[in-house]
Amino acid sequence: MPAIPAPVAGRGAHARERVMAAALDQLADEGSAGFTMEAIARRAGASKATLYRRWPSASALLVDAMATTFRPLRTPSDEDIREEMVALLTLASQMLASGRFPRLMAAIVDLAERDAALAALHAGITAQQRRPMLELVRRAQAHGEIAPDADPEVIVDMLTAPFFYRRLVAHRPIPTTLARSLVDQVLPRR
Amino acid sequence: MPAIPAPVAGRGAHARERVMAAALDQLADEGSAGFTMEAIARRAGASKATLYRRWPSASALLVDAMATTFRPLRTPSDEDIREEMVALLTLASQMLASGRFPRLMAAIVDLAERDAALAALHAGITAQQRRPMLELVRRAQAHGEIAPDADPEVIVDMLTAPFFYRRLVAHRPIPTTLARSLVDQVLPRR
Repeated sequence: MPAIPAPVAGRGAHARERVMAAALDQLADEGSAGFTMEAIARRAGASKATLYRRWPSASALLVDAMATTFRPLRTPSDEDIREEMVALLTLASQMLASGRFPRLMAAIVDLAERDAALAALHAGITAQQRRPMLELVRRAQAHGEIAPDADPEVIVDMLTAPFFYRRLVAHRPIPTTLARSLVDQVLPRR
Repeated sequence: MPAIPAPVAGRGAHARERVMAAALDQLADEGSAGFTMEAIARRAGASKATLYRRWPSASALLVDAMATTFRPLRTPSDEDIREEMVALLTLASQMLASGRFPRLMAAIVDLAERDAALAALHAGITAQQRRPMLELVRRAQAHGEIAPDADPEVIVDMLTAPFFYRRLVAHRPIPTTLARSLVDQVLPRR
């Protein structure tokens, strides 16, 4: 059922944001199979021509939307390293528990296999999201709580990968205790 | 370009295998967006009607193909636990390095978000694939090499999740040293 394209309200920046929000909603709801310029235009109440004037493809639109909506995690405070680690992992766990984010992640995982620009952008965003945890791991190494010859990137993987893996691959529950269990394996017990 | 459906060779079991192989190839090549009964039929040289006589949907066909082609990993020997762990992780790493398997995984991650039967099957296969590592972790606990109060499932996550996460989410390289680095974090160093 083709909806009648409504005039894009506000034009300019506001219209652009509305189309980008519609693209993320469409991808989260329908997955990569339903991610077409036509479907995004319909959801945004815009014409396909309007979308094509700004973005050459649905994938380019997605790259733009992701880059725009991305907010890096805050830098951890100088407080207790263990509690800062648990807090960061609890945040990741909460994001993966909500409806939209994991479905968006799942669709991007598939699309990125055939789209080098999207894969590169996703890699960059992931690298930025890892940074606060990387800093905590390095601090723990400086304090002698993690072996100095351990690769901090590998430690960050061991702490964060289980959340994505459980939610997207293994389809296993993520108990609220998981964050603390993981940190207990990496830092010396108290 | 619609191909002329060739008569399905051999009928019965052989034809079924050919269609299932075509379905996996189609999903690996085109992702979930290109995974339709029409495209699978074309690739298998069969008619859509033939496919629908056996499977109600592309997703049901995929569940059948995955269940049929799945081979569980061998049970580890009684040899050195550390070397058995490294060998299992190296195998996972090699699977994720080849072209077809990771792309199939990526597409299934997306499809499973909207398909409970597929998610349940994928969860079951993943649980079976985890079993040999779970056994090694329990043996290491029995030998006092891993704390007795650690959750073996969490340890298996820490060892295996980084491979999937690096390949599918972070788009980071998987060095050949990763398997051993991970095991070094879980077992006491020698």
